[in-house]
Amino acid sequence: MTEPKALSQIRVVLSRPSHPGNIGAAARAMKTMGLSRLYLVSPRDFPHPEAMTRASGATDVLENAVVCDSLAEALAGTVQALALTSRHRELCAPPRWLPEAASELLQLAEDSEVAVVFGNETFGLTNEEVAQCQRTVTIPANAEYASLNLGSAVQVIAWELRRQALEGRLPALPQQFGELATHDDVERLITHFEQALTGSGFLNPEHPGRLIPRLRRLFGRAALEREEVAILRGALASLQEKS
Amino acid sequence: MTEPKALSQIRVVLSRPSHPGNIGAAARAMKTMGLSRLYLVSPRDFPHPEAMTRASGATDVLENAVVCDSLAEALAGTVQALALTSRHRELCAPPRWLPEAASELLQLAEDSEVAVVFGNETFGLTNEEVAQCQRTVTIPANAEYASLNLGSAVQVIAWELRRQALEGRLPALPQQFGELATHDDVERLITHFEQALTGSGFLNPEHPGRLIPRLRRLFGRAALEREEVAILRGALASLQEKS
Repeated sequence: MTEPKALSQIRVVLSRPSHPGNIGAAARAMKTMGLSRLYLVSPRDFPHPEAMTRASGATDVLENAVVCDSLAEALAGTVQALALTSRHRELCAPPRWLPEAASELLQLAEDSEVAVVFGNETFGLTNEEVAQCQRTVTIPANAEYASLNLGSAVQVIAWELRRQALEGRLPALPQQFGELATHDDVERLITHFEQALTGSGFLNPEHPGRLIPRLRRLFGRAALEREEVAILRGALASLQEKS
Repeated sequence: MTEPKALSQIRVVLSRPSHPGNIGAAARAMKTMGLSRLYLVSPRDFPHPEAMTRASGATDVLENAVVCDSLAEALAGTVQALALTSRHRELCAPPRWLPEAASELLQLAEDSEVAVVFGNETFGLTNEEVAQCQRTVTIPANAEYASLNLGSAVQVIAWELRRQALEGRLPALPQQFGELATHDDVERLITHFEQALTGSGFLNPEHPGRLIPRLRRLFGRAALEREEVAILRGALASLQEKS
């Protein structure tokens, strides 16, 4: 599975983050989802050992982070920036729910640089910061408790971008470890069941009911393997001997 | 936006979690996405103050958590359980990528109880635990670094379930704060531009080029508000007076 090119053109911008641990968590969340371009606007404490610890295997994202003095500097060169907000604001960019915002952003990221902007843990983004973005994005969280921490918000948005970037491109997973039984293998198994259960008295050939059709439906749905047919026939044979 | 019923039938099962902080983070991740039913199989330290701290506003999820002695106990009553795994295993349940697994699970959750099962932070799930689940689910993370911590894995899966449960049900967001300009408002604005720019010499009526069509295209795309038309016409008038 090759990494989608669009993901390499997405900047994650953290504006005035207070806690270095959150910067590290954001870096880890980014890297697991294939994002690598972290921009930090006036971070309170950076670099910081706690950021490195929380980043775990994503310390390269921290080492390559671009530290800026202003949001304008972090957004220079981008053609669209999404501002994460949890509420509507007057006179701001068109609001989007996350799935739609991610879709628009990814289309632009095929050819151009784009950004997602996250505000301070406590204060969020200022109106002036939001005004510099072309869209606002909202995660449709539980209205009763919508408080994602910074690292979790980055994780959710990074996954949504990755999910959409990979859509239709995920390789097939191996669905079967053994060789599938053929139609006639399964029919012989069903005949074996018929004989054994007639012998045991569970099936009355005069009034067979729906027993055999139900077994056939079950085996068809399960897509039996050759070895499973052999196990079931062996088990039936042993039960027949015993009776 | 009413919460989808299916989400209330999904259990999040953490098997043998080592760190109480991760239990708290999982509870917070769940609640933000509308999940509430946490099951803990043999947690090392629970209840624990660190779990409460990390849960933040989701302490009710912790208080209602069901502590079990075995996975079988946590899964009793469910019709499908997804085991989160990062690698393939011999003789295990059919593997699914997260989007497909979430879709199957949600269909069953409309009428029945279901579960998603997460293993220990270091060891993951045992083969015996995976064997009790009907599907394995894998997050298609970056192959170079696929290590999500427990809270982040719960966050990603909970968002994916919520996203799909809300599909087609998200309310429209208010896209406009002012009254839209009508066709004739915009045409008058364009005529005003034509006059002003002819007067200033920027537009040559003999060879108008594509200036006016481009302005019309821009204003059309932007979906101008009445007030914006008034601002632009006022600005044009002031520039005309000055020249």
